[in-house]
Amino acid sequence: MIERSIDRIDGGITASLGFRAAGVACGIKAGGALDLALVASDGLSAAAGVFTTNRAVAAPVLLSRDHLRRSGGRAAAIVINSGCANACTGPQGDQAAASMATATARALSVAPEHVLVASTGVIGVALDPGKVTRGIGEAARALRPDGHADAARAIMTTDTSPKAHAAATIIDGTTVRVGGMAKGAGMIEPLMATMLGVVTTDAAIEPTLLQRALADAVALSFNAISIDGECSTNDCVFLLASGASGVSIGPGEYAAFVAALTEVCRALAVDIVRGGEGATKLVTVTVRGAASVADARRAARAICNSPLVKTAVHGGDPNWGRLVAVAGRAGVAFELSKAAIRIGAVELFAQGRPHDDRAPKAAEHLRGRDISLEVDLGLGHETARMWTCDLSPEYVRINAEYRT
Amino acid sequence: MIERSIDRIDGGITASLGFRAAGVACGIKAGGALDLALVASDGLSAAAGVFTTNRAVAAPVLLSRDHLRRSGGRAAAIVINSGCANACTGPQGDQAAASMATATARALSVAPEHVLVASTGVIGVALDPGKVTRGIGEAARALRPDGHADAARAIMTTDTSPKAHAAATIIDGTTVRVGGMAKGAGMIEPLMATMLGVVTTDAAIEPTLLQRALADAVALSFNAISIDGECSTNDCVFLLASGASGVSIGPGEYAAFVAALTEVCRALAVDIVRGGEGATKLVTVTVRGAASVADARRAARAICNSPLVKTAVHGGDPNWGRLVAVAGRAGVAFELSKAAIRIGAVELFAQGRPHDDRAPKAAEHLRGRDISLEVDLGLGHETARMWTCDLSPEYVRINAEYRT
Repeated sequence: MIERSIDRIDGGITASLGFRAAGVACGIKAGGALDLALVASDGLSAAAGVFTTNRAVAAPVLLSRDHLRRSGGRAAAIVINSGCANACTGPQGDQAAASMATATARALSVAPEHVLVASTGVIGVALDPGKVTRGIGEAARALRPDGHADAARAIMTTDTSPKAHAAATIIDGTTVRVGGMAKGAGMIEPLMATMLGVVTTDAAIEPTLLQRALADAVALSFNAISIDGECSTNDCVFLLASGASGVSIGPGEYAAFVAALTEVCRALAVDIVRGGEGATKLVTVTVRGAASVADARRAARAICNSPLVKTAVHGGDPNWGRLVAVAGRAGVAFELSKAAIRIGAVELFAQGRPHDDRAPKAAEHLRGRDISLEVDLGLGHETARMWTCDLSPEYVRINAEYRT
Repeated sequence: MIERSIDRIDGGITASLGFRAAGVACGIKAGGALDLALVASDGLSAAAGVFTTNRAVAAPVLLSRDHLRRSGGRAAAIVINSGCANACTGPQGDQAAASMATATARALSVAPEHVLVASTGVIGVALDPGKVTRGIGEAARALRPDGHADAARAIMTTDTSPKAHAAATIIDGTTVRVGGMAKGAGMIEPLMATMLGVVTTDAAIEPTLLQRALADAVALSFNAISIDGECSTNDCVFLLASGASGVSIGPGEYAAFVAALTEVCRALAVDIVRGGEGATKLVTVTVRGAASVADARRAARAICNSPLVKTAVHGGDPNWGRLVAVAGRAGVAFELSKAAIRIGAVELFAQGRPHDDRAPKAAEHLRGRDISLEVDLGLGHETARMWTCDLSPEYVRINAEYRT
């Protein structure tokens, strides 16, 4: 019998057995705010990572990719600073990222290539290795099995709240836990648009399968959100598997494991959207009737990034024509005479004809905070779901006036 | 000796010999505003058109494409209504578009397939054929060789001003004229984002070469602008060549003709950007050092559509990091260590290093109304130029609150 139930639990990044975490203030941010997070596994964990596809890639991303390759997918710690992205910082930046790994390795008595590094904050500003090194020593002493809250707070920049979720599921009769924390997205600091995620599990799983599981879960969560269509120099998501639950994940357990992993990643991703700059509404975009999954995702992404759709949602205007126009320009197979548009449960356009008499009912749905937009491309059976937020004058104000 | 000088002249769409135009009020717009434009050539003109790539294509676009094909690139008139896009209107919409062509053909004693049709306005609302037919009769009687101003006004929706330009150049010792009018872009009416352009010339040129000339000019003008990255169901640009100047355009005259054509198209396109919703600044984006023209255009388009770049320009913030990040995510070959970013004449990033001491000088440039952003990808010798506007809270307000 396959156990399918997934329960939300407390504990964030340290909900999984075998992990400790800490968050400290190392002096990058003004006013003594937490700005350095450390996550450590009791032994060596299997490790996986997905990274930004931006070609202007930050030093910590280059270093972490290299460490995962050299270690064959094993890690003992993840160190993250906020307040400085260490991007576009030249050779000095590479040295600063390396010194973060070295200091963490020394503090925890592990090899440097078993440390993963991430940074988030302003682009083009040098990272002070002295501050970070001192902070790492302090964080190593502060590591606790319930240290998730400080860690989640230490990776924030101007996020309005920390983002942490955890879940438990039963696999082969034993409980397996998945915990995570995230920050971003949107221009949280000037010159920066960074999404970071860290996820732990106490399942035992080989690095190759762990990497596949992370890619599968990220496709349906972190890669299925958009605040403003920007992709940063620093984006990354790490996953560590301690094995402390004693449950081994093989092909037979894979689906149940990925379901729990996706649950946590999706909750973190949706939190990021809800906390998007200027966001007042969470928008779930579902594309149905696509000729291929790639088409469905492409159309969903175009809708999530359309300023006209996002402003209409902000204004509570059931402008179904904007959804038709975006689906038509998305570069996917689309058949107008078979397409359908739904806002909430209200079908406003179908079989080539508008139903504008239903607009008031759709407008009522748009007055809420959880909005559903559905586009049926009218061609096939493939589906995709993505999340975005509305576009408000506040988003423009934040990004136009931040430094003035 | 090749004459290269191009002079701006008055007269808009009727500056070219052999054309008459009119604009009348047929009752689609409230309050007696002009809403029907007619452009007629004295005889049969060579005709070319470029159309929206949106798959949710409006009835008049389908009809005009069909007429150009059936006539072998010949037309005697263009009829355009504003206030109603006749898009997503089903079989009724097809009939309404056809009736516009038929009524125009009858009024001018030409064949229906020699009439091109365009509509701009609200999507999903039926077009009243009675109003348009009566208006066409009135417009045919009002046709005048200096009727360009009424015609340019009649294609406006909520454009802040009419857009008309004309130019003259000397080819083979004789003056050739190019005149044009345009409307758009941005969400000018709710549920709509329409760019329309009509250009005339008194050069004599075969339809096949005319189509090529239009495609070449549009690539460097109408297709090199973006207000908000949206592409409408109704976009089209028509070009009619009367031959009334007596100058024939063959391969030897082609470059000079396209130069004049591009001059007019570019002036119209830049006017559209200046009149973009909420726009306070015209932004010229130049990408240099690209490995290919396609890469240069792709990077320029990504920059023009980046909300983070556009909000930074609005706020006067020389955020060069946002330009690096967009160039890096644009899907083009990009080498951070060789890239350079200039705002106005000020180089803020080059050879992997920021020059933030120059930021005040760049901020000074950003306080103007004509902004230049330049990104050198550091890889090759190809270049592209595009135009966009800043993203202001006013854009969001217009598109969020239009119907409330």
